[in-house]
Amino acid sequence: MPSKNIKYGLIGSNGRLGTEVINVLNEKKYIQVLSYNLDEEIVEDRPDLLIDCSLPAAFNSTVSLVQKYKCPLIMAVTGLEPEQLNKLKQLSRTVPVVQSYNFSTGIQVLLKLTELAYEKLGDWDIEITETHHRFKKDKPSGTAKMISGVLKGKDTNISSLRLGNIAGDHTISFGGLGEVLSISHSATSRRTFAEGIFLTVEFIIKKKNGYYSFTDVVFNK
Amino acid sequence: MPSKNIKYGLIGSNGRLGTEVINVLNEKKYIQVLSYNLDEEIVEDRPDLLIDCSLPAAFNSTVSLVQKYKCPLIMAVTGLEPEQLNKLKQLSRTVPVVQSYNFSTGIQVLLKLTELAYEKLGDWDIEITETHHRFKKDKPSGTAKMISGVLKGKDTNISSLRLGNIAGDHTISFGGLGEVLSISHSATSRRTFAEGIFLTVEFIIKKKNGYYSFTDVVFNK
Amino acid sequence: MPSKNIKYGLIGSNGRLGTEVINVLNEKKYIQVLSYNLDEEIVEDRPDLLIDCSLPAAFNSTVSLVQKYKCPLIMAVTGLEPEQLNKLKQLSRTVPVVQSYNFSTGIQVLLKLTELAYEKLGDWDIEITETHHRFKKDKPSGTAKMISGVLKGKDTNISSLRLGNIAGDHTISFGGLGEVLSISHSATSRRTFAEGIFLTVEFIIKKKNGYYSFTDVVFNK
Amino acid sequence: MPSKNIKYGLIGSNGRLGTEVINVLNEKKYIQVLSYNLDEEIVEDRPDLLIDCSLPAAFNSTVSLVQKYKCPLIMAVTGLEPEQLNKLKQLSRTVPVVQSYNFSTGIQVLLKLTELAYEKLGDWDIEITETHHRFKKDKPSGTAKMISGVLKGKDTNISSLRLGNIAGDHTISFGGLGEVLSISHSATSRRTFAEGIFLTVEFIIKKKNGYYSFTDVVFNK
Repeated sequence: MPSKNIKYGLIGSNGRLGTEVINVLNEKKYIQVLSYNLDEEIVEDRPDLLIDCSLPAAFNSTVSLVQKYKCPLIMAVTGLEPEQLNKLKQLSRTVPVVQSYNFSTGIQVLLKLTELAYEKLGDWDIEITETHHRFKKDKPSGTAKMISGVLKGKDTNISSLRLGNIAGDHTISFGGLGEVLSISHSATSRRTFAEGIFLTVEFIIKKKNGYYSFTDVVFNK
Repeated sequence: MPSKNIKYGLIGSNGRLGTEVINVLNEKKYIQVLSYNLDEEIVEDRPDLLIDCSLPAAFNSTVSLVQKYKCPLIMAVTGLEPEQLNKLKQLSRTVPVVQSYNFSTGIQVLLKLTELAYEKLGDWDIEITETHHRFKKDKPSGTAKMISGVLKGKDTNISSLRLGNIAGDHTISFGGLGEVLSISHSATSRRTFAEGIFLTVEFIIKKKNGYYSFTDVVFNK
Repeated sequence: MPSKNIKYGLIGSNGRLGTEVINVLNEKKYIQVLSYNLDEEIVEDRPDLLIDCSLPAAFNSTVSLVQKYKCPLIMAVTGLEPEQLNKLKQLSRTVPVVQSYNFSTGIQVLLKLTELAYEKLGDWDIEITETHHRFKKDKPSGTAKMISGVLKGKDTNISSLRLGNIAGDHTISFGGLGEVLSISHSATSRRTFAEGIFLTVEFIIKKKNGYYSFTDVVFNK
Repeated sequence: MPSKNIKYGLIGSNGRLGTEVINVLNEKKYIQVLSYNLDEEIVEDRPDLLIDCSLPAAFNSTVSLVQKYKCPLIMAVTGLEPEQLNKLKQLSRTVPVVQSYNFSTGIQVLLKLTELAYEKLGDWDIEITETHHRFKKDKPSGTAKMISGVLKGKDTNISSLRLGNIAGDHTISFGGLGEVLSISHSATSRRTFAEGIFLTVEFIIKKKNGYYSFTDVVFNK
């Protein structure tokens, strides 16, 4: 059951993810009290926490808002620079910060399952496949690299497929003599990331200062 | 690397699984010194361990052989009676016994991954699918029931497909709003079970008396 | 390349499908000149054709509009009564009418491929699987029944899975001894149906009176 | 129902495919009257037809046998040289010859379905995936190239996966905006190729001279 009367501020509320975040958090009866887009800022009340779904360019404004309200921050912007990540870590000495490039719960579970499977089946053949919409230029996907990263020191083939407007499918397969084990994740809509941000709100409002990942949220550390 | 000069006896050496077990263990340079089929017994040397891949009808002969040679037993016969399982447990007070209905490593890993995924995604929708050859009469498969058994207290839908001569495919899917996570296992040949029996030999020869499952072998308890 | 300066009227323009149809047809530079929702009617110009994406309750209003403007009709409403379908057939003596319950091109191709595969592999085992969101109450899906309908006189097992918010996945598998052939379709967004309606516009504006299905559109009869 | 009293000769009867062919043809009550392996030839009766499942090195012996018995030839050897294929065509002026590198019925149907799907969905994104056992060195597989060859003039990405001992899986996917259509084939055992050779026997014994492919057999030209 969602916490009551949570008041949140949203940086990037006009974007695709921002719009979905508002939908989900409104369903949970949270109250949006601050909205920030480019230079437009609307503040109705003091927020209990801030969520940033915008772009790296808004980073400094976000930091200022966190410092002003001394409240927790959920940072969901992708493509941050190393110095921006460092700044977030500094910030986390005074407020709780959750930073992640992927707020899908299923992907976090897939990473955990991959780790366990690799422990047992590390000498089997391993193949990773990722399928995304035709507009995605980079290959392989960042998430495929995250999966590959779990297989410490193993150089793993990643096949990249580009098809229609698929939101994002990832599969890792382990092949032994006589059997194949596969773990697959399919994102069917952007809503999944908004649901992950909701889980993060419930996590962060109970925390003191500290720097957390979405893995910490899902595995409740 | 396989242990050296292991001498094994095989009950049911003429059967489908028995034949495959001989192939795999010979590759590992083990030496077959005892063969038992119905009333035909060939003994060349004292075995270090016994493997039973036959049928429940041979059970008493197998027990006698174990008592005669005071050696470990790998029991791979399916459809044993409760009293036969009890007898095995008694036997395990004096020798190590590994008993399982499924010696596929991948299925053991799938069960473990299912357990972990269910911990995190227990409130998502869950579906199990199993596909087997057209000659399989029982629905759902025993393995599908094992998977379902991991989801304690959750009544889960199992879809059974019968197609051609598929050796055995199992999938469990967790569906949330916006994403689906699936774990799949496909048995591509009977060899997988013989490989599992090889792993069990390496496990059992280091054990004192005790009653073990194939889960213990794979997770090295 | 889309035809130029097409002026269309849309019944049910506020609904989920209607909204998506407007998005797609606007991209094609068509011009919406008539909008009808419940009792609200906005007319800016005489339409070249009418599209109905509403509900069976609006049927009589739609027929009146077609008669008034003597223009082609694309009927995309689901759950019509037999008498309403008959009325459409009458109407098609004077204007072209395309009626379908599913405007996905991929599903039309799947049905055609199924027909061809069944001709060659009719004595193999056949299994149909359909997966939809948890909110879908009816089992099996209408589309699964359409697929099954292609296998004349063959009583085919249909497995229904309900997972998260999957828009709609369908698979038909043919299993022989030693091989399996499968045809799968996955709807990843409602846009696919709007794209099908766009194709239907390009088809219908070149037709005289007559009653057509979306199969006719895709296979250009 | 199989034809009666068919007497066949088999070149390469000791090989993996040859052994499987004997199993299947014996089940059909055909009679093997000639066996040829390297330099060992066993002849019990005059064959109604010859089947070659051996290697390119045996080619000349096979041609001599066909000329001696003036009977139809099923040529299932892979990796023939262009001049050997030419020789077969010459031979087909006097006897019927069926030559193919893949006697799986399902693959033939997949190729036909691909052709039809490509006609309708030629402007969608297309991806081909092939998965084979770890021992397969060449990438992509010959069958993947055959599938790609159906898409005339379209440069299509082929992803190659190598996993355990998978006999051979092939998938072609067509991705549009909002939907994906896939056609998949999975070879689960070598038996499938022996079944294809049985179908070819039934086809060839009714033919006069001529040069045929396995496509002709399946689509009964």
